[in-house]
Amino acid sequence: MLLNCDLGEDFGAWKMSVEPAIMEVIDQANIACGFHGGDPLAIETAIKNAVDNNVSIGAHPSYPDLVGFGRRHIAMSAPELQACLRYQISALKGLCELHGSNLDYVKPHGALYNDLVKNESIRACVMTVIAEFSSLQLMLQAGPWQEMFIKEAQQFDIELQFEAFIDRRYTDDGYLTSRRVPGAVLTVEEALTQAQQLIQQQKVTTQSGQPLTVMASTLCIHGDNSVALGLAQEVRKLIEKSRV
Amino acid sequence: MLLNCDLGEDFGAWKMSVEPAIMEVIDQANIACGFHGGDPLAIETAIKNAVDNNVSIGAHPSYPDLVGFGRRHIAMSAPELQACLRYQISALKGLCELHGSNLDYVKPHGALYNDLVKNESIRACVMTVIAEFSSLQLMLQAGPWQEMFIKEAQQFDIELQFEAFIDRRYTDDGYLTSRRVPGAVLTVEEALTQAQQLIQQQKVTTQSGQPLTVMASTLCIHGDNSVALGLAQEVRKLIEKSRV
Amino acid sequence: MLLNCDLGEDFGAWKMSVEPAIMEVIDQANIACGFHGGDPLAIETAIKNAVDNNVSIGAHPSYPDLVGFGRRHIAMSAPELQACLRYQISALKGLCELHGSNLDYVKPHGALYNDLVKNESIRACVMTVIAEFSSLQLMLQAGPWQEMFIKEAQQFDIELQFEAFIDRRYTDDGYLTSRRVPGAVLTVEEALTQAQQLIQQQKVTTQSGQPLTVMASTLCIHGDNSVALGLAQEVRKLIEKSRV
Amino acid sequence: MLLNCDLGEDFGAWKMSVEPAIMEVIDQANIACGFHGGDPLAIETAIKNAVDNNVSIGAHPSYPDLVGFGRRHIAMSAPELQACLRYQISALKGLCELHGSNLDYVKPHGALYNDLVKNESIRACVMTVIAEFSSLQLMLQAGPWQEMFIKEAQQFDIELQFEAFIDRRYTDDGYLTSRRVPGAVLTVEEALTQAQQLIQQQKVTTQSGQPLTVMASTLCIHGDNSVALGLAQEVRKLIEKSRV
Repeated sequence: MLLNCDLGEDFGAWKMSVEPAIMEVIDQANIACGFHGGDPLAIETAIKNAVDNNVSIGAHPSYPDLVGFGRRHIAMSAPELQACLRYQISALKGLCELHGSNLDYVKPHGALYNDLVKNESIRACVMTVIAEFSSLQLMLQAGPWQEMFIKEAQQFDIELQFEAFIDRRYTDDGYLTSRRVPGAVLTVEEALTQAQQLIQQQKVTTQSGQPLTVMASTLCIHGDNSVALGLAQEVRKLIEKSRV
Repeated sequence: MLLNCDLGEDFGAWKMSVEPAIMEVIDQANIACGFHGGDPLAIETAIKNAVDNNVSIGAHPSYPDLVGFGRRHIAMSAPELQACLRYQISALKGLCELHGSNLDYVKPHGALYNDLVKNESIRACVMTVIAEFSSLQLMLQAGPWQEMFIKEAQQFDIELQFEAFIDRRYTDDGYLTSRRVPGAVLTVEEALTQAQQLIQQQKVTTQSGQPLTVMASTLCIHGDNSVALGLAQEVRKLIEKSRV
Repeated sequence: MLLNCDLGEDFGAWKMSVEPAIMEVIDQANIACGFHGGDPLAIETAIKNAVDNNVSIGAHPSYPDLVGFGRRHIAMSAPELQACLRYQISALKGLCELHGSNLDYVKPHGALYNDLVKNESIRACVMTVIAEFSSLQLMLQAGPWQEMFIKEAQQFDIELQFEAFIDRRYTDDGYLTSRRVPGAVLTVEEALTQAQQLIQQQKVTTQSGQPLTVMASTLCIHGDNSVALGLAQEVRKLIEKSRV
Repeated sequence: MLLNCDLGEDFGAWKMSVEPAIMEVIDQANIACGFHGGDPLAIETAIKNAVDNNVSIGAHPSYPDLVGFGRRHIAMSAPELQACLRYQISALKGLCELHGSNLDYVKPHGALYNDLVKNESIRACVMTVIAEFSSLQLMLQAGPWQEMFIKEAQQFDIELQFEAFIDRRYTDDGYLTSRRVPGAVLTVEEALTQAQQLIQQQKVTTQSGQPLTVMASTLCIHGDNSVALGLAQEVRKLIEKSRV
């Protein structure tokens, strides 16, 4: 089990960052590409920090929506969306290479990430672009849909990674409970329990109290809050323990 | 002598483009990178068009200033400017490679282009970044400064290209006369005369009527006007004739 | 019957404008507010031009989406959307007053305009904001829904204007045929026929050949094409003739 | 002596704000207008908060430079700059009126604020626009130049306010020491000493240890740091004490 975190999301004078020390604890950095956050210097700083800590780098592309932080669906034509993805991924990949590293995977951000679970044509759009790059994996949300997604990905000859969330309550259907629902965001203690479940049993306890299998190979730590570093350190310990 | 033109500068619904047929006449396309113009689809369309016509591709990066079209100096720190350049050039380079081509050179845009002639530290900033990429050339304005620039470039181990303008009047010092001065922008007829002078004698006639040597290997056709295509076709004929 | 046209939509170096002479022919100028187009100088220039020609001014606010020209729905919360509308309308209104005029009405732009026909909660959002200003009217699309809209507007104590399109084919339901359907955009000749029908009989002939009543008090001239001025002049003649 | 603070500078998901409780301590809120920070909802929230606390509202307009937070000079033509100011001030003024308040003054932001001290033609630009609004005052930096500025303002028939900084070291010439110089930003203790000097004697102690007269009617509290609220509360006490 790996740990990943969204990084490089500062924009000019505005900061949105977990402490750089998170890099010592995670395995994978999903780095913003400038369309929902991340000015070039913030992106480059995150890449350098990842390289210094031997952290694998993923591109974190988004719909073009700075003021909405990429959290709102934007109805783009397939050629528009694909051009946006090629542009963002190319920028990240080039920056990685200039800093002596590689781009390993792509994790779409925000509304685009959510759209990928629900919308087959958007998935096809994204997979088409990923396949154009060599050896680029695609990180998606783990859930009951993932067998289907793996079949789709085989047609594009790309590999998928699936991630689970430790600090969000799941519905019985495998979706995340809306943030507007009380209890949707877990407390640190609940998050550690869910992390433990995911690491040991590939399971979570859903909103209704049922066990649900979630086959993830990486866990997401949300970086935009003050407990992220501490939580990441605890989850890292759980992972190390499980390896013994 | 080669012909180059700025392309890919549309932004969303706004068009700023010479007819695509210009690609049949030019040798080099300077393609916008999104910071002064060029949404990803416009950029990609220009790249495809260049590839289809065997036109060499250069990145045309800018200060970040969409509403000002990159025509205004922005006081950026060296790390900020370099990160902006790495990001823009990486995006272009990646897009070129996805379309089966290469990025051959970089021609800075607008205020950044002008700053390069006058400001040694900005030149060092830009050359540092160009040198980080392999086999990337830098296109600058031809002028009395070019021997000095070539020496500087040797220290970075990069090659320069120098361009001249056919439709702008030169001062005796080798600068372009400000657009605000009457006569600064040449008529089509005057532009053809200047093109002929540049092709045959590496000279222009300055504002004061003096001959001035301008050692250029490429001529710039301004694409943002209605006579661009016709003018380019005439200059192409002059170049072909001179080769006989 | 009045004539209206979208204006002030230039953005920096990018132009998107019918000739200024259109102001001599129209009654109402819908002026961009900066969120889908219209930098401050372009907006101000359009206002001055309207004032000089005694043309009534409307604000043309949009979802915040420059690169998409406001043509894509953006899922905003009600407080976000209302703040965006108050900001844009306030900016226009203030500029009008500085130039010795008034803001008379608001015509939402693009995707927001379309959403208003279909979405009651977005209508309530917009009407709430319009009602906060004194004596501001709201321009909406004429159609079978307009009795219902008038009742809604009475609850907010605001007056509506309804507009029809002369150059777009209507469906039997009173919507505009999608631009992707062949024949959706009328030829100049067809547009003049439809204008005549609207002026004399408050009717159009739909896609299926049926007559459909369209109770409009103003006709929209699309300004973003080369025939706009000529078409507007012809429609103006038809209106004048009908008044005799 | 009054207390003022820059507010409303959040942008979408990015926060840059002192706690709202600062409104209970200050007299004047300089509210962002969207060009260096401040999305419409952030602006509106700041206005409501100011109105609820009977705090006087000023517009805080900027050069158009979100990623640079308005801190970089942008060479705009006079008509461009004036249109930008009219747009921003109009937006703020309208929003204030919708919330039952008024716009009392304008304090230019960042690079524009600094340019006003050094550049007479930019001052004339700004004063021209301020004079177009009725009863709008202009807040500028207190310094040896202020007699001259008052004379200039009289020609435009506008009133000036002058502000001093409690947490920045002054040069002997009355400018602020560059942030790059060690000691340029005062500690909380030093800031309280400087506040006391300004309130009681209209003086500061400069970088070289000399006393310098600074005739300010308002003191600026920088809101973008964690000590702002506590510092503001202490300065408020000093002001109250001085009134006894």
